[in-house]
Amino acid sequence: MNNEKPLDTLHHAAIRVRDVKQAVDWYTQRFACKVEYQDATWAMLEFANVRLAFVLAEQHPPHIAILGDPSAYGEAKIHRDGTFSIYIKDPNGNNVEILALAPDTITSEKS
Amino acid sequence: MNNEKPLDTLHHAAIRVRDVKQAVDWYTQRFACKVEYQDATWAMLEFANVRLAFVLAEQHPPHIAILGDPSAYGEAKIHRDGTFSIYIKDPNGNNVEILALAPDTITSEKS
Repeated sequence: MNNEKPLDTLHHAAIRVRDVKQAVDWYTQRFACKVEYQDATWAMLEFANVRLAFVLAEQHPPHIAILGDPSAYGEAKIHRDGTFSIYIKDPNGNNVEILALAPDTITSEKS
Repeated sequence: MNNEKPLDTLHHAAIRVRDVKQAVDWYTQRFACKVEYQDATWAMLEFANVRLAFVLAEQHPPHIAILGDPSAYGEAKIHRDGTFSIYIKDPNGNNVEILALAPDTITSEKS
């Protein structure tokens, strides 16, 4: 069918690490990916189709982020970079971030 | 630079669930995604840019899968669907699957 609804986009998956720099070094040495953001508590790597984030579990929860309308799920939090999002939990306790990009960043999104 | 190496592709992220059917139902009811595979022990959902898998942790380890050459990392395991892969661990103990698709499935890949 040509009139199927387009599939949603997974913006990033954030996995738990103990040492952010060590994780960034390990992945960038082995895989073709770019460091989009990095500090001592989290980092974001860009792959061809999606982003992979590293988080210290005591600072940021491990999660997956799906592009969508956070306000459909409750009161969204506005972040410093202009994005806004809300965290919900799936039935198994996994954290899911519903993420809306800042208007001026949407054109740089790939999908 | 136009001669940068293309970025690698993350094929899927597999997250831990206790009930695969419950997870598939919850995600498919809320997000535009397609069930690519589902049984009692694991499932694979297709999003626009990447796949999200659900695994029972006692059957399949949670992991991320990156397309690449498994044989560069050791002896790859050939799967029934013709793919082959190897699991390695990052320095933080996260499982990373290096995955090569079966030749006749590559043309259906999006990226």
